[in-house]
Amino acid sequence: MKWKPIETYRAFVFILDGVGDRPVPELNFRTPLEVARKPNIDYIARMGMTGLADMIEPGIRPGTDTGHLAIFGYEPYKYYPGRGPLEAIGAGAKLKPGDVALRCNLATVEERNGKLIVVDRRAGRIKGKDAEELVRALNEAIKEIDGVKVEFHPATAHRVALVLRGKGLSPKISNSDPGTAKEGNPVREVVPLEDSEEARRTAEILNKIIKLSYDVLKDHPVNKRRVKEGKLPANIILTRGAGMVPLDLKSFKERFGVKGYVIAEEDTIIGLAKLLGMEAEIPEGATGDLESDVIAIGKRALEVYETTDTDIIFVHIKGPDIAGHDADYLGKIQIIEKADEMIGYILRNTDENKTVYAITADHSTPCIVRDHSGDPVPIAVKGPKCRIDKVQRYDEVSCAEGMLGKIRMVNLVPIILDLMNKRLKFGE
Amino acid sequence: MKWKPIETYRAFVFILDGVGDRPVPELNFRTPLEVARKPNIDYIARMGMTGLADMIEPGIRPGTDTGHLAIFGYEPYKYYPGRGPLEAIGAGAKLKPGDVALRCNLATVEERNGKLIVVDRRAGRIKGKDAEELVRALNEAIKEIDGVKVEFHPATAHRVALVLRGKGLSPKISNSDPGTAKEGNPVREVVPLEDSEEARRTAEILNKIIKLSYDVLKDHPVNKRRVKEGKLPANIILTRGAGMVPLDLKSFKERFGVKGYVIAEEDTIIGLAKLLGMEAEIPEGATGDLESDVIAIGKRALEVYETTDTDIIFVHIKGPDIAGHDADYLGKIQIIEKADEMIGYILRNTDENKTVYAITADHSTPCIVRDHSGDPVPIAVKGPKCRIDKVQRYDEVSCAEGMLGKIRMVNLVPIILDLMNKRLKFGE
Repeated sequence: MKWKPIETYRAFVFILDGVGDRPVPELNFRTPLEVARKPNIDYIARMGMTGLADMIEPGIRPGTDTGHLAIFGYEPYKYYPGRGPLEAIGAGAKLKPGDVALRCNLATVEERNGKLIVVDRRAGRIKGKDAEELVRALNEAIKEIDGVKVEFHPATAHRVALVLRGKGLSPKISNSDPGTAKEGNPVREVVPLEDSEEARRTAEILNKIIKLSYDVLKDHPVNKRRVKEGKLPANIILTRGAGMVPLDLKSFKERFGVKGYVIAEEDTIIGLAKLLGMEAEIPEGATGDLESDVIAIGKRALEVYETTDTDIIFVHIKGPDIAGHDADYLGKIQIIEKADEMIGYILRNTDENKTVYAITADHSTPCIVRDHSGDPVPIAVKGPKCRIDKVQRYDEVSCAEGMLGKIRMVNLVPIILDLMNKRLKFGE
Repeated sequence: MKWKPIETYRAFVFILDGVGDRPVPELNFRTPLEVARKPNIDYIARMGMTGLADMIEPGIRPGTDTGHLAIFGYEPYKYYPGRGPLEAIGAGAKLKPGDVALRCNLATVEERNGKLIVVDRRAGRIKGKDAEELVRALNEAIKEIDGVKVEFHPATAHRVALVLRGKGLSPKISNSDPGTAKEGNPVREVVPLEDSEEARRTAEILNKIIKLSYDVLKDHPVNKRRVKEGKLPANIILTRGAGMVPLDLKSFKERFGVKGYVIAEEDTIIGLAKLLGMEAEIPEGATGDLESDVIAIGKRALEVYETTDTDIIFVHIKGPDIAGHDADYLGKIQIIEKADEMIGYILRNTDENKTVYAITADHSTPCIVRDHSGDPVPIAVKGPKCRIDKVQRYDEVSCAEGMLGKIRMVNLVPIILDLMNKRLKFGE
């Protein structure tokens, strides 16, 4: 063996959303991964290292968001910002550590005996220009409260994201939205959910914003017109799902010293990737279901590999999760086989001596459960001249015998970086 | 596959106390679990998922208390309250988060040169009505010190549990009891063991209580009579083993959202279960040794399953631990076989398509060690249509190849909840 300067490599991480399963009675108690014909995926397992990964910890059922956070190398318990910030990013907000964001509805209230009673939590499912115009009015009227900057971002239909930016905020506050089953109930006062100055202050600011939103919206021309047309006015915002971007959240580049790029079929993942400072896109042809043009997704991933200096390209295929939720085990097998073709395309068009390939999932979605489960997911990682274990196939039972053993998903990125020769040492 | 609403299931967790072992020379270097004939236990292993679990962390020897805390899903390092609170619960105290409890002895002291010298740490092993009457006198005289409520609970013979209830207490204090080998030494002053206001305050309160106990007891009629009868007076209490119920301890129901029920052969486990808000009982026929009517225990467990809405029933069999401490490997094999019969009885009388079964232990008690060891314990979990690994038998060597891999025992309850479809998601 000749002595050469140590080369560094780049990597693909293929994320088969919800691909892990349990034995399917109709498949003679095999899983879709055990039944699917997937020579390329199995090649990575056969020529690499395999194992099982708990997304969060054993038995805990992950969401797509917490699962991907772990795949991207961030401890979910520590860095999960909650739904508010993820929806705000989806609505176009640019969030920073310390920002508190909430999910809001444009809603309809009536004054009765001095109280604001919720008549419709969705203001007759207001949408389009009406909603946008009202959100614009809110942004013009409510820019800052008690030194905290306030932003409203219109989202789908009656949904609005609210962002608070300033020092000393807390997400530990209650909802003003009384919830689905509670129409006819008054708007709830926001109260602190922990004994801290930050929570008290944030609750106070929100109560002011909610009151102000009513003042701004109740006589707004859009609402006057809506009432004339027999529609419900959207005369208040109701808040829920407060979350904060962790103060110590570092970007992917800062955390791992490499550039990540995310090609995904789902907004939540794009939002999460952007929160971590990665470039992210939903490629053309991606429909997020079993009809998705999986090969087109692979072609775009290859293009990113060839035209950018990205170190790790994450490629997300949504179909297996959809099939799991639908208990569509045959559909799950087919989408796994499609993903396999796509992975084969990338294997053929990249140099295996310079590339690391990993196969993983963000959680299991067993057909029998029709929801995410806490079952660990199989992982396979192959790099140039990496260790090779005895496992021949990528599935739930085979990978349990792999040399990676049982790991936590947050360990995956460091394992990949190590094979890329991009890992800094801890110690000397 | 037909569309059905997602079913939820209930579970049995069989705890074979101390069942893990090391190779026994007299068994041709097999363990009791490897030698015992246990078709029902092995069925659960064969049709389910297996692994090894460290009770606390690798190599750490657990007690019955810390082991069970982990089985119940509570991190022992975080939630172990110490012996004081466990003995207090055993003596009938109802403890709350923040309570500090201590083990006490009724003891005999003599004044010499203005010091209180310990003559007998157990006051001549005082017991029965004498002890009860003296504890009653303490409770009447010492109800509150510096705003902290004080309770004495008589326990076995000379033993008393002391409970302090109030804000700002700490268990980080020294013992007033000078210890077994130190008779003839003075009662020790209680000092804070950490630099905190709470520890200083708690030490001060205890010194007052100890002094007061002498004032209350020294001339008590019971003691005057005892001296006349030539017995040692119980004229003071000596304290040790302070522990605090963690402030953030949640009940099992609050923590996991399901109801647990504990059927056990030992007071410590009952106390722990009650501290976690679970119903708990020592069933009829349970003797906590090799003579125990194990089938009767199983029958009671089945009755609880059939007549209550309990979600998880923990069934504890003490015998294997007793046999391990006695190096009685044949006895250990026999009690394992008895437990297997009991488990078979429950398998036959419950619906496997609606029930999760788990086999575990609270620690290993190898015959060769005659004490608890840090060896991990085998676990097997079987649920309706769960994943199935290749392991055929429940023992220390076979389960090392299981797909659960090496887990920590606190992960067991979440894994069971996942199979029960009772687990909430983290994320969306």
